[in-house]
Order: sequence, then C-alpha cells, then structure tokens
Amino acid sequence: METFNYSDLSKTDIARLVQRNVDPANEIRALVEDVIAHVKQHGDRALYDYTHKFDKVELTRLYLDKAELEEIASAVSEDQQEALQTAYANIYKFHKAQLKTEDKVETMPGVTCWRELRAIEKVGLYIPGGTAVLPSTFLMLGIPARIAGCSEIVVCSPPQKNGKVNAFIAYVALMLGVNRVYLVGGSQAIAAMAYGTETISRVDKIFGPGNQFVTKAKTIIQSTTSTAIDMPAGPSEVLVIADKTANPAYVAADLLAQAEHGIDSQSVLVCTSQEIADKTLGEVTKQLIVLPRAEIAKQALDNSYIIITGDLNEAMDFSNQYAPEHLILATESWKEITGKIINAGSVFLGNLTPESAGDYASGTNHTLPTSSYARAYSGVSVDSFVKKITFQYLTEEGIQNIGPSVEILAEMEGLHAHKNAVSVRMNK
Amino acid sequence: METFNYSDLSKTDIARLVQRNVDPANEIRALVEDVIAHVKQHGDRALYDYTHKFDKVELTRLYLDKAELEEIASAVSEDQQEALQTAYANIYKFHKAQLKTEDKVETMPGVTCWRELRAIEKVGLYIPGGTAVLPSTFLMLGIPARIAGCSEIVVCSPPQKNGKVNAFIAYVALMLGVNRVYLVGGSQAIAAMAYGTETISRVDKIFGPGNQFVTKAKTIIQSTTSTAIDMPAGPSEVLVIADKTANPAYVAADLLAQAEHGIDSQSVLVCTSQEIADKTLGEVTKQLIVLPRAEIAKQALDNSYIIITGDLNEAMDFSNQYAPEHLILATESWKEITGKIINAGSVFLGNLTPESAGDYASGTNHTLPTSSYARAYSGVSVDSFVKKITFQYLTEEGIQNIGPSVEILAEMEGLHAHKNAVSVRMNK
Repeated sequence: METFNYSDLSKTDIARLVQRNVDPANEIRALVEDVIAHVKQHGDRALYDYTHKFDKVELTRLYLDKAELEEIASAVSEDQQEALQTAYANIYKFHKAQLKTEDKVETMPGVTCWRELRAIEKVGLYIPGGTAVLPSTFLMLGIPARIAGCSEIVVCSPPQKNGKVNAFIAYVALMLGVNRVYLVGGSQAIAAMAYGTETISRVDKIFGPGNQFVTKAKTIIQSTTSTAIDMPAGPSEVLVIADKTANPAYVAADLLAQAEHGIDSQSVLVCTSQEIADKTLGEVTKQLIVLPRAEIAKQALDNSYIIITGDLNEAMDFSNQYAPEHLILATESWKEITGKIINAGSVFLGNLTPESAGDYASGTNHTLPTSSYARAYSGVSVDSFVKKITFQYLTEEGIQNIGPSVEILAEMEGLHAHKNAVSVRMNK
Repeated sequence: METFNYSDLSKTDIARLVQRNVDPANEIRALVEDVIAHVKQHGDRALYDYTHKFDKVELTRLYLDKAELEEIASAVSEDQQEALQTAYANIYKFHKAQLKTEDKVETMPGVTCWRELRAIEKVGLYIPGGTAVLPSTFLMLGIPARIAGCSEIVVCSPPQKNGKVNAFIAYVALMLGVNRVYLVGGSQAIAAMAYGTETISRVDKIFGPGNQFVTKAKTIIQSTTSTAIDMPAGPSEVLVIADKTANPAYVAADLLAQAEHGIDSQSVLVCTSQEIADKTLGEVTKQLIVLPRAEIAKQALDNSYIIITGDLNEAMDFSNQYAPEHLILATESWKEITGKIINAGSVFLGNLTPESAGDYASGTNHTLPTSSYARAYSGVSVDSFVKKITFQYLTEEGIQNIGPSVEILAEMEGLHAHKNAVSVRMNK
C-alpha cells in the first residue's frame, strides 16, 4: 500500500486518488445489447440457450418450485439457520422502522397536501450465484421488499453446475416466502425481468449486484425502458479513519475483509500518524498469511493506499472527497467527527464496530453506493421499494384562497387553459 | 378523442393504450454525445460556441450576477411578486415537513443502527427558457434544494435573444438566494454541470425538465458519470377519472390545461358513462375556441382518448395500468377509491382541486414521473436532495451478541477475513 502525506497532495493528486473507474466495461456494451435484444425477441428460448452457453447447464425448466427449494434447503445446518434468523430479525427490525406515514399539511386555509406510500408492485431481485454465493444479499433485498409490500417478487439467480441453487439461497427464499427462484443469471436475467418472457414477469424495478455484464445490462435497461434500477454499481470499497486510539489489529482485519472481495476492491487507510500506518501494515502482513483468499486480498491491497493526515478533521476532509461506500471511524473520538460526514454509504463507529457486522447482521443494508456515488445516492432501504405519491385536496375556501395566485402564475407562463381550470371553479 | 369501452378491451389493447414512447429520441444520441464530448474537452469555449450556434446569442460572460438579476427582476409587477410569494410559501411549508430525523433502533442489545440525512453538496438545476419560461419549475427545484441545505446550487437557463433571462426567472433566483444564473441551455448545459468547466462547477446531481436534447443528455450523463439525475422525463400527461358527480366544465378545463403544454401531451378521460364523455367533449369544444394555444391543445387531444368503464373501481384499475403523472379524481366519492391508487405521480382529489393548483401553488412538487415511470419513481421532494446515510455502533455487549452469527454467515459465504474482523474483536 503506497503512503501519501495529505499536506503534500495537490488538488489534482487528490482528484486522481479519489477517482474510481465509473464505467469500466463500456467495451462490453455491444455484447450485452445483443443479449438483451435476443431475450426481448425470443423470450424463454433465449434464456435456455444462454444458460447452456454461459452457465454450461441444460435446464428443462427455468425455475425451482417450493418443494424443490425445501429439499435443497434441508442441507442447511441448525447453526446456520440460527445465524440466518438472527440476521433476518435485525435487518427486519431496522428496515421496519423506515416505513412511516406522514402528516397532512394545510399549506393555506382549505388547501391540504400530503404524501402516501405505495409499494412498487413488481420488483426483480438479482442474486449472484456461481463462485460467489450471497444469501446475505438476498436478505438485504428481500426483507425491505416484503416490508414495503411489493405484490410480486421475481428472483433470478444463475444455476450451479447441478442445475440448482445453493442451499443457503433456497433457505432464504423460503424465509422470505419466495416460492420460486428462476435459474437465470447474467445480463439475460436482467433483460428477462425488464421485458418479461413467457415464464418470467416484467418488473418495475430491478435490484441487486452482479458482474460487469449484469451491471452493464442494468444501466442499459435503465436508460431504454421504464424499468428502474436500484443504483449503479462498482467494486466494493472501505475507507478507515484511524487515530492513535485505534487498534491496529482491528484496522488490519477490516482492510483485509474488504480486500478479499475481489482484486478490484479498494481498502483506503486514512490515519493521523506514520506510526499507526506502520503498525497496521505489520498486522496486515501477519493476518494475511492465514487467509484462504490471501492472493485476492494481496492484489486488492496493491490497488489501495494510505493517507497520513494532521488530524481527524483533515482525515474526514479527504474521506468526504473520496465518498466511500463503507466508512469506519476507528477512533474513540468518533462522536466529534460524525457531524462532519458529508458523503458515505454506511458508517461504522468506534473500535468495536467492524464492517462485517453491517455486511451481515447489524440491521443496516449492505447494498450501498460505490465509486463515489455516495455523493448523490443512498443505500437500499424500504424507500427503494416504494413510491411516495403526493395528494392535494382543495375545499371551497381553498380554491378561493389559492385561485388568484394560480391565475397570475399561469398567465406569467402563458398557459391560459391552466388559468381557466382555476377560474371555472372560482366563479361557479 | 377516440372512445373505448373498457369491457371491450383485450389485454393487448390496454397494453397499447397505456404505452408511451419511452425513448423517442434515440436518433439524437450521436448528436448529444458529440456536444457532451466537446464541452468535456473545451469547457467554457464550447459553451460560448454552442450558445452562439443554438441560441443565436453572442455572450461576453457566461452568467448574470446579482446586480444584473436585480435589475432584470425589477420588471416583475407587485401582483406577480405576491403570486410568486404565495407559491413560495406553500411549496416551502409542504416540503419543509418532509425533512425529518429518524429514531435510533437497537436491533439487539448493544447493536444500534440509524440513518442521518446529509444534503447532496452540489446540485444543478436546469430551468428551461426560450419559448417556455417556467419560474414555477425554478421554485419547485430551488425550494427543496434550500430546505435540504445543499451548499452549492448551480442554475443554468438558456439566454433569451437579448442575452438575458426572463424577469420572472431573475426574480425567483433572488427569492432563492441564487446570485448567479448561467446563460447556458440545451445538452451543453447538462454536460457543463456533469463535467464542470472553468466557470461552471461540476455537480453531484442534475434536476429539471427540458427538450429532447436535454433529456437525452441527462440519460447519457447518468449512465457514464457519477453525476445523478432527478428522473427520466417524457411529455406531460393527465388522467381524469370522472363519474356522474363530476362537473363536465371542470373536467374539460383540466383536459385542456394538460393539452396546451405541447402536441405530445396526453389527456386521458376515464369515466363511468357515455353521457359524461359527451358532456365533457361538448365543454372541451366550447372552451377550446378562446384559448391562445388552441392549435397545440387540439393536436394533443387528437393523441388522447376516452375510456368508458362500468364503475370507479374499473376506472382505477385502468389508471393503475396507465400510471399517470397527474391523476384527477373528479368525483365526490374520491375517499372510497384513493386507497386503490397504486401508480400515480400526484393526485388531485374531488371537483375543486384542479391540476393547475398543484402545478403552481398548492405546495406539492410538479416535477413528476411521466411515461408510466410512476410505477417505480416518485416525484421530486426534499428526499431527492439528500442522502440517507446509515450508521451503526456496537458496544462490548453488542459485539459479543452479534459476533457468533456474523462468524457463521461469513463462513457460509467463504469470506474468512470478514469472519476474522469480528473474531479479533470478540477475543480481545
């Protein structure tokens, strides 16, 4: 990990350091567009073909039903079931609190406005499969969808070599009351959910992470259909702010947890002295040896770096420019700096709050904005599965109160029919 | 306006009727991409050139400053000022109520999670100019930006032939405390705000309606940069549900108000009898004659239609499939059907609540999802100008409570460094 002194960095240096590759996969656009066009035209047939071609699996049916899921899920041990249930309970509790009704506002006498939540009717969840099996992602998307009250939840996950899904995915499906899992992955799954096929329903919004083909397909779908997506996605990342009250062994563990995701992951350490950096690097070396995914983590750390700042305020200043997906405040003074956080996806406070707690079970969502998208985007929440519809109601008094202003404003914009819609009601 | 009986319509017929052109302007993509590339490369120089080319204005400076805005705004009459202030007050009041802090949730003993709002730092507002001068849009975007606390608000609006903006735009700028308006329009304005130039700051999110070039530029920006956009945009539309308690003159006025926007606007009437349809059409003909924009409205109505349903429930059923930007419930029984609304942008209740009240001054936002996007998108609100960042804090008790589950879950996903980040903290 290369080390920089913050005070030595120019604006251009900082811009370069905080830059992530926003659109790394533009060269695959044509390929993905071709897959989408095929699925749109040939429906299920295209899905069978692509599953054969890309996943090397010959399906006879595009989905697993409830009985099959139950059989697969029976392989989950009791300990594992309990762990999944703990995660479920915490995620449910935190997300349930996000579902709120709002008060009506009388903006002037007789003019009342409010918002009501309505679930997005049909949502599609993409759950990666193959090498990375992520039951936690399924919980993170399925629970808020259920809390929101989405009436149809379409789940796509690529089949394993045996033509099934992993036992944990099957177990989570049943926890969520999802009785069917489609064995479709890649950009073809995104296309199927955006356009619908004979077997798979068209959905209104698609959620979930995936490889570069999935991500590219979601981007294309978002700009060419009325199906929305959760957010743009890039490689995962963490930024740890540490001062002398941090525990280097913990910081090292957090940097490595991020680094093991993939070689394109980034772990940034921003600390207030060279000594902290050195101690942390010592711990990284020690912990790295025993990791099964050491080779991946090592490559990811080669893409990562350390910034030495004068104090925690400078550290936060850099962090806000980086806009990290995960921000860990490895300091006993975290209360003094949380107010200064401007851009971040999810924040982990103090020395005893590892990112992996939030990845799995603290209750917060782990579907978060990467690649500096945290400047404008929030992570997934119940909000992501609902619309807020505005309502307004005018009484007789209300139309008389607001009418004259609307007439003048409509005239200012040269829209006389707008004016008339008020006038006819005022002069009744 | 063509009339259909709902009971005669097949699923395919309905799908055709509710279909809007989602991406009407794909053929202009290359042109817009070219503009964006030029602005990215040449900055201000490109903006001067495009303004000369497209707006036929030779600028000597890219913006108007406070003194210039004040001079221009002095042309706004007292009546007009009062109308703008009424709109401001109502919009402010309704949007201010949207800004809420959330409670902390202890998901298990020692594990506390919550969300905090942070304003998006830099936002860009595109305010159309030229023939359509929309001070109301400026209010609808600027007020929630101010309430959210965005630290930088960049406003772009194309110059009029005199190289200035309209007096109403200048007046609203000053109301909002915006002391500089950039005289840039079209896709070049979107590119400038996404990439930044010598004079114009790069922003994190771009808001505002515009012509097909502006819309296309926003779509491209969204999928190729980390700058977000408010939502995709299409032509404006209204769906009016009317029963025998409706007033045909009011309904006609509402249909015409929508139709005068542009020839691609759509006004859909869904009513429970042929008699209501006939009476409304009679009123449309009568009111149309005196409208300055009659020619536009007439063409828009030619693209519109009427559906006759058996009852209000069927009407709502059709409306949900259409997912209208504006939904007017022209019936005294509106309370009985609002619970059945699934998809809509903004809803106008009863016979005395015209859409134009919400367009200007009721307090709700008029930047709303069109083209069936209301199935998955909400209109602009204070939410659109903030991020919700999740926080979590674990105590000693918390890490011991949650740790074992996280260890098991991390192992299930084969992520041993994730497990270790918890283990090192539990075994200290």
